[in-house]
Amino acid sequence: MTAHKHPPEAGQTADQGFVRHYLLYLLAAASEGVSTEFHAQVRARGVRVPEWRILACLADEDGQMVTQLAALALMEQSRLTKIIDQMADKKLVTRRSDERDRRRVRVFLTATGRSLARELVEDARIHEAGIIDQISPAQAAILKHVLARIVALHGPEARPAGERRTTRPAEEES
Amino acid sequence: MTAHKHPPEAGQTADQGFVRHYLLYLLAAASEGVSTEFHAQVRARGVRVPEWRILACLADEDGQMVTQLAALALMEQSRLTKIIDQMADKKLVTRRSDERDRRRVRVFLTATGRSLARELVEDARIHEAGIIDQISPAQAAILKHVLARIVALHGPEARPAGERRTTRPAEEES
Repeated sequence: MTAHKHPPEAGQTADQGFVRHYLLYLLAAASEGVSTEFHAQVRARGVRVPEWRILACLADEDGQMVTQLAALALMEQSRLTKIIDQMADKKLVTRRSDERDRRRVRVFLTATGRSLARELVEDARIHEAGIIDQISPAQAAILKHVLARIVALHGPEARPAGERRTTRPAEEES
Repeated sequence: MTAHKHPPEAGQTADQGFVRHYLLYLLAAASEGVSTEFHAQVRARGVRVPEWRILACLADEDGQMVTQLAALALMEQSRLTKIIDQMADKKLVTRRSDERDRRRVRVFLTATGRSLARELVEDARIHEAGIIDQISPAQAAILKHVLARIVALHGPEARPAGERRTTRPAEEES
């Protein structure tokens, strides 16, 4: 199915070259590569990665509810709640009940949190611009467009609360 | 910097809309979304995700060394070694010393491991084909090309053993 770059050697199978052309590998390796770089910058500012994600989401839209934040920050809700507690202790966020529905809790940035979020978003834009320059702005625009479509179809907000059906062939030997 | 889709509301900042257009978010959310789906299929076969990654890498090239495998399977070497131990207990892989350099250990699939790897690679191709159909094969080809470039520049094999320098601006308020 995939082209052989090298003649097959003893002990190798017909699947040689699958991983390096596999969309899920490419997405995971690209994401991990660029995120590892930027997360080093985040930690150098004394901020943990989940805190950075929450700060960025709240900088976009302050006063989000925990459920919204969990989807956008790519975190389990129980984990997010724990991080929000710690961020409240650090005076980066405050929690207030929703004005219309007192049972719902909204999360807001403090002045300190907002200032830290702005600095980190600025760092993130600079780091991102470096990557976009490398791959050319035109290709980066297509990349973002296609990724946004995958996120809309398969991302955290596309998934219903329960399971998501995926095609799964009957068990068979190939 | 980014276009406002909605008029800004009280409590929102000028950064509204950063996250949803941020390359690192799009990569992480797309990767997490499609991987979550496929990993459910992997677990349904009684295989753990790191085991699937190692099986796929060995199906591509049998007899890889632990260092190679760790980069391609996106794992810390210490974690990989532990998973390889467990896979050896399950008779999915065997370890043999390199013929030229006895200190180097190579990992090989057993017949059972190879058969399981083939089934899973077949599942992965079917799942991947479903995503490629959704986003159109032409756009998928561009996507893979650009992702491969990012992986080459920033991925696990691009990173030198030590640190990787990234641009980091002086601390400043924006």
